[in-house]
Amino acid sequence: MAIVNENHLKLPGNYLFAEIGKRVAAFKEHNPSADIIRLGIGDVTRPLPMACIDAMHKAVDDMSRIESFKGYPEYEGYDFLINKIVENDYKKRGITVGVDEVFVSDGAKSDTANIQELFGLNSRIAVTDPVYPVYVDSNVMAGRTGEYIDGKWTNVTYLPCTSENGFVPELPKEKVDLIYLCLPNNPTGTTLTKEQLKVWVDYAAKNKSIILFDSAYEAFISEKDVPHSIYEIEGAKEVAIEFRSFSKTAGFTGTRCAYMVIPKELKAYTADGSEIGLNRLWYRRQATKFNGVSYIVQRGAEAVYSEEGQKQVKETISYYLSNAAIIKNGLESIGIKVFGGVNAPYIWMQTPNGMDSWVFFDKLLSEANIVGTPGVGFGPSGQGYFRLTAFGSRENTQAAVERFKTRLKV
Amino acid sequence: MAIVNENHLKLPGNYLFAEIGKRVAAFKEHNPSADIIRLGIGDVTRPLPMACIDAMHKAVDDMSRIESFKGYPEYEGYDFLINKIVENDYKKRGITVGVDEVFVSDGAKSDTANIQELFGLNSRIAVTDPVYPVYVDSNVMAGRTGEYIDGKWTNVTYLPCTSENGFVPELPKEKVDLIYLCLPNNPTGTTLTKEQLKVWVDYAAKNKSIILFDSAYEAFISEKDVPHSIYEIEGAKEVAIEFRSFSKTAGFTGTRCAYMVIPKELKAYTADGSEIGLNRLWYRRQATKFNGVSYIVQRGAEAVYSEEGQKQVKETISYYLSNAAIIKNGLESIGIKVFGGVNAPYIWMQTPNGMDSWVFFDKLLSEANIVGTPGVGFGPSGQGYFRLTAFGSRENTQAAVERFKTRLKV
Repeated sequence: MAIVNENHLKLPGNYLFAEIGKRVAAFKEHNPSADIIRLGIGDVTRPLPMACIDAMHKAVDDMSRIESFKGYPEYEGYDFLINKIVENDYKKRGITVGVDEVFVSDGAKSDTANIQELFGLNSRIAVTDPVYPVYVDSNVMAGRTGEYIDGKWTNVTYLPCTSENGFVPELPKEKVDLIYLCLPNNPTGTTLTKEQLKVWVDYAAKNKSIILFDSAYEAFISEKDVPHSIYEIEGAKEVAIEFRSFSKTAGFTGTRCAYMVIPKELKAYTADGSEIGLNRLWYRRQATKFNGVSYIVQRGAEAVYSEEGQKQVKETISYYLSNAAIIKNGLESIGIKVFGGVNAPYIWMQTPNGMDSWVFFDKLLSEANIVGTPGVGFGPSGQGYFRLTAFGSRENTQAAVERFKTRLKV
Repeated sequence: MAIVNENHLKLPGNYLFAEIGKRVAAFKEHNPSADIIRLGIGDVTRPLPMACIDAMHKAVDDMSRIESFKGYPEYEGYDFLINKIVENDYKKRGITVGVDEVFVSDGAKSDTANIQELFGLNSRIAVTDPVYPVYVDSNVMAGRTGEYIDGKWTNVTYLPCTSENGFVPELPKEKVDLIYLCLPNNPTGTTLTKEQLKVWVDYAAKNKSIILFDSAYEAFISEKDVPHSIYEIEGAKEVAIEFRSFSKTAGFTGTRCAYMVIPKELKAYTADGSEIGLNRLWYRRQATKFNGVSYIVQRGAEAVYSEEGQKQVKETISYYLSNAAIIKNGLESIGIKVFGGVNAPYIWMQTPNGMDSWVFFDKLLSEANIVGTPGVGFGPSGQGYFRLTAFGSRENTQAAVERFKTRLKV
């Protein structure tokens, strides 16, 4: 008799964005004429850089001719892309990353969800709270998180990041094995300085823990002293895996490409204390369960690093950051307390009068026809907060701010 | 302290095709002038159908304009593709599959490797032997297979398929929960009739087992009475998940697109006996750990079903099947016993004098400079067999047969 993995059944309700989709669909059914502005899911809206478009046309043509046709890609990605990543994202910042330390994938969601497979089921995970739900949910499905009681998993260490502590997480009191850090943070849009991040690298080194560092929003960093890569911190190659994505950097959410860096220095341990290199362990995982990323898509990603591509990417990022500033300034002008939006496309607002996040979601949707994301969907410390994204059009962003000012009944 | 998932360490050595790659690289290093013909890894060589090329150019252009730009795809695939799948692969064969029963993915390897996540760790798996290594390896990594002793996993039920039983597996003696069937089979190229497949559907119904039916080679079926889908068998929707791929059908190994069908009727059970629908469970898995397939790629896959696309696909399949016939006839002409090659792109040959599969691999590589795949790499009952593929060019296929005749020292 086929028995299900009952850990999957522990997930409470829908995946956050699926639940939002459901509520919006229900609202639209009853209000078919409502002109909804979506500042909820963190999805881009600007077209791909023309450099990527041109490169993908060429790649499609490659697939039409026997002499340039490509079959199975390398599990870890094509050299042409990996070389560009190593050169531009690392070497130019003074960081040495080997070409065999980079693994190209179809998305940072897959990567951050799958990486836990490398670790024992008794590993204790720590997450900043609030945070991107995939880190916790993928561990729930694997059976690592215990029971869900009062909005928290009993075996997860939550590291609250709120306005009270300036969104700087404190080191955990209990020992933890895997630490998920997302910086610039989704959903709060906040960052850590190099000095603040070093505290975590040192903690991991001391406790033989591993930091899973998701820097999907790196391209939005606009301030100095905000690390673009965890490997800017001394000792990080011994303790950290870094996740990057072309989704937010270059509008690839619908094109699908990301990568991970797993340094060769990075080790985990068997129960009896032997060192195991995680780089080769992940290669074996990918070789067994993944068949690489589309050649066409990898050519598109490569073009992000061309001179033209870089210029176009920066224009788009700047467009989104201007949206972020419009939201931030607009909301502040009516007395709403707002965080993020400077080094990230996310604006993290406190709900008026500490209102419940989902109640505010429904209120904002019904009164202003704006879709945002309830903060509590990102973790218990997100309660009383709400996430807005800067990925809309300029027009919609301005209209949304206007609606905040005129239609929201506070 | 970060402890690894020690199940990963149980995998013996390299993934089969990685090991082959290593041996070929070593041979080339010592024999740089050798003109190697690759009939090893099952990778296509013919260009994509022009219908797919045209569709992907159009899709790339869609990504360049704000009004047609696509962000995150649906987790389960775009309707435009799913509708074509339902219509062409099922309805035209008299099979009813709902649009919400299809899940588009980046490859059948990912799907067949990931599906085990839905099931309890105590599930007993059965595999036809020999078979595509991913089914067993993904279960090894999850910890379901026990110990590896004398080429077999202690907790896996092997269903031998050899020339002795005409490659028709016998029902297992012990009860099994999950049954992997790959038909037409990789690596043997053999199939089952409807009547023979019905035996398995009935077994699964009786034992509440689930059949994981991989029909990645369906497009190569040329004989009547060979089922194209397991859902041609009465009762199969209650017991089977079907995996399909565009890789071999339309040359998508480097483009990456596949799909699964999980019928709504299909249930597994909790330990206390409650029914759980696997369709929604998989949706939740994908929503949490996967972000869908590239829009451009899905448009390419859609074009496979256009009139032009179908014509072009059939031409390519026919080209490969002619290669298969050339290999089959050539080898038989020198007294080698050969199976498959009629409903599949694979020729499964007995090694001369029952030689060890890997010994024959090295012999064929060094004497004839031909790369094939050692049968034992697909399971213990593959020992003494060897797989050749029909995916080469006509010229190479003919040259390979000539080398078999003239250079192989038997």
